[in-house]
Amino acid sequence: MILTVTLNTALDITYRVPSLRPHSSHRVTEVTERPGGKGLNVARVLAALGHEVTVTGFAGGATGRTVRELLSRTAGAVDALLPVTGSTRRTIAVVDAATGDTTQLNEPGPAITPAEWSAFQAAYEQLLRSASAVALCGSLPPGVPVGAYAQLVRTARALAVPVLLDTGGEPLRRGVAARPDIVKPNADELAELTGSHEPLRATRDARRRGAHAVVASLGPDGLLAHTPDGHWRAAPPVRARGNPTGAGDSAVAGLLSGLVEGLPWPARLSRAVALSTATVTAPTAGDFDRAVFEDLLGRVTVTPEVSAA
Amino acid sequence: MILTVTLNTALDITYRVPSLRPHSSHRVTEVTERPGGKGLNVARVLAALGHEVTVTGFAGGATGRTVRELLSRTAGAVDALLPVTGSTRRTIAVVDAATGDTTQLNEPGPAITPAEWSAFQAAYEQLLRSASAVALCGSLPPGVPVGAYAQLVRTARALAVPVLLDTGGEPLRRGVAARPDIVKPNADELAELTGSHEPLRATRDARRRGAHAVVASLGPDGLLAHTPDGHWRAAPPVRARGNPTGAGDSAVAGLLSGLVEGLPWPARLSRAVALSTATVTAPTAGDFDRAVFEDLLGRVTVTPEVSAA
Repeated sequence: MILTVTLNTALDITYRVPSLRPHSSHRVTEVTERPGGKGLNVARVLAALGHEVTVTGFAGGATGRTVRELLSRTAGAVDALLPVTGSTRRTIAVVDAATGDTTQLNEPGPAITPAEWSAFQAAYEQLLRSASAVALCGSLPPGVPVGAYAQLVRTARALAVPVLLDTGGEPLRRGVAARPDIVKPNADELAELTGSHEPLRATRDARRRGAHAVVASLGPDGLLAHTPDGHWRAAPPVRARGNPTGAGDSAVAGLLSGLVEGLPWPARLSRAVALSTATVTAPTAGDFDRAVFEDLLGRVTVTPEVSAA
Repeated sequence: MILTVTLNTALDITYRVPSLRPHSSHRVTEVTERPGGKGLNVARVLAALGHEVTVTGFAGGATGRTVRELLSRTAGAVDALLPVTGSTRRTIAVVDAATGDTTQLNEPGPAITPAEWSAFQAAYEQLLRSASAVALCGSLPPGVPVGAYAQLVRTARALAVPVLLDTGGEPLRRGVAARPDIVKPNADELAELTGSHEPLRATRDARRRGAHAVVASLGPDGLLAHTPDGHWRAAPPVRARGNPTGAGDSAVAGLLSGLVEGLPWPARLSRAVALSTATVTAPTAGDFDRAVFEDLLGRVTVTPEVSAA
């Protein structure tokens, strides 16, 4: 199975309101809830692609219970989340029906105790023993040490399980140094890590910091990959319009499934770009449109990148 | 005991954000949760005044479970809520820390089935047999007939239990016609019911529609009461500054506790105004400040109202 780790799971709530006006009262016309946090999104896409997938991380309180209930309805994803005392956070996306714009409200995560973090590390090592690959995704909740991902990367590498890291800030900086197989920063995370806003230079620099392969997601421009097998740029044939929520998570699912299936890098990148684009165009945020995905798959352009390095 | 009915209970969530900017992403710095819906607020104040109080109405889903968990920590309020299949709604108050202004997002209530409504009516009649008074509070969730309060008023009157109605719109219009002992509309509800924006005239008119006593809450101006014993205006000695959330519910608790204790109308009105004002000035929305309440109690001015009727 493929393992995805979401230390800061969330209950993602979407509210539709006729028009958002600050300092007034709104009747919410539509409420949708889904289990959230990047690793859970990655798992949903992997399961839809036909992979066996197990999710782990933390879940607690009433919202944690709801996340697990909703997760149990996601075909194919096995729930190996660890219960914690704190409450799983909610995120609220308020969609203004008049403009289509979204206002996001994100609760802080639950405080994780040292005992809970230790229990997680033990459970994680156990789960890795039957994993073909692992994705470490998203932010860290309060109480989890900033070097957490570095430690989880080292554990995976000691057990020879390919590991992909998708996070930002200091957890990314430390995680990269532990030499993960793949990191997938977006443009902002890459710039924060390297100090460079020039993607080509920054991607190369991120690899020098320790990652075996760096796949930078550049929004509608697609992906830029520096790998031991070569350097590529992968772009969708059309500029997709829609909701980019979850597009990066779909790219991670594409990369990881391609790795597990032994696909060469260009095929992995095509799949990641097609999934990502089909997520932007899907009517429900975070889902991907299968017909669009299948249509795009053969039409993604993957071109070798000529690099100075 | 005093019974309070909240057909549309809620989980009241308050978010504090540094500054609310539509169409951007916000980190919530503080999250508070409390059991909500007007009848639950009334019950909390009655319990704080030393009364035995039972709450009934509907609770369902994960938010319903949370409401009941939080309610169980409110000393003195007995939980007689009926479980339903639908999910209890959330309300979210987003407080802008920069300005102090609040943006409110209210989910719709759960759909109540005919069987659930029938079960409630039977449970309500049973609870009334040990009640000294009952308050019917707030909006109706989908599925509950618009004449629901009229029916609940008639049941209470048939069992000789004094009944106070605090709602608006068509449920108020129908409820008043069933001759409740007290209705407590605010200025907007009163104007909607009677078509008049002149409080004195509108209060008199509301009484003619069937209520034995009408107590109109006029915000910082206090209360205007038309009762079988006389007409009064009750006003706080100072204009309170603060959060008016729950002030009307505190007024209901004041009126109902005074009725049960056999206080004359002027004393009931003083208590209601003092509680209401002490709720506006309290640091936590919906709570009342006991010291302010006790200080104000003797200083509320209750003056007989000279009426043309």
